[in-house]
Amino acid sequence: MKSRSTSSRPSSALRSPCPVAATLDILGDRWTLLIIRDLFSGKTRYRDLISSPEKIATNILAARLETLTSAGLITTKPSPERVGSVEYHLTPKGRSLLPLLQSMRDWGLANIRGTQVRITVAAD
Amino acid sequence: MKSRSTSSRPSSALRSPCPVAATLDILGDRWTLLIIRDLFSGKTRYRDLISSPEKIATNILAARLETLTSAGLITTKPSPERVGSVEYHLTPKGRSLLPLLQSMRDWGLANIRGTQVRITVAAD
Repeated sequence: MKSRSTSSRPSSALRSPCPVAATLDILGDRWTLLIIRDLFSGKTRYRDLISSPEKIATNILAARLETLTSAGLITTKPSPERVGSVEYHLTPKGRSLLPLLQSMRDWGLANIRGTQVRITVAAD
Repeated sequence: MKSRSTSSRPSSALRSPCPVAATLDILGDRWTLLIIRDLFSGKTRYRDLISSPEKIATNILAARLETLTSAGLITTKPSPERVGSVEYHLTPKGRSLLPLLQSMRDWGLANIRGTQVRITVAAD
């Protein structure tokens, strides 16, 4: 049973009207919210995202960046440092994920031994 | 790259100390939080969980129930209605996922067209 690749379905193809199910269609995997976390922490470059300690695979990172762009959660800007490169930034819709990310962080800290706070949220 | 089946890793095998990453190792897929949602709504029986509108596959439901039990988020009790059957219930650790579930619901309602509230949280 295929359990990915439905992230950019139009809303008419929602699995159900449930907002949790619809959100999971975009964010329901082990990696997407880590990219969102990294962008909140101020990372903007592909090479910074790829170097996070969880060691995301390049093909997964590329696919998730594309999905997040299609979903309107991130946007790209030309890099001021390197011609031909882009930077990734959260859109307002992407930044509205902060409470969800914080809920997840709080639950992990309270319930999973060995976790600790490292996230810092960058200003706009 | 394998992206499931790490849910019951001991904490010493966390991908990183990040609480978001550790939480995603348990809950990061398209289905697990829907099972949690259903248990919050008062469903306790396998046949009720399988009949949710998102049409979870039987093998995925069985695997996720096992993972959630191993992680201490749900527990089973003998069914009072049918000998040999069990009921599934959230543990206190499982019930502590309510704020996370609510954050996800709120984000979906605000950002994904076609979603609507249907969840009711059952009393203990």
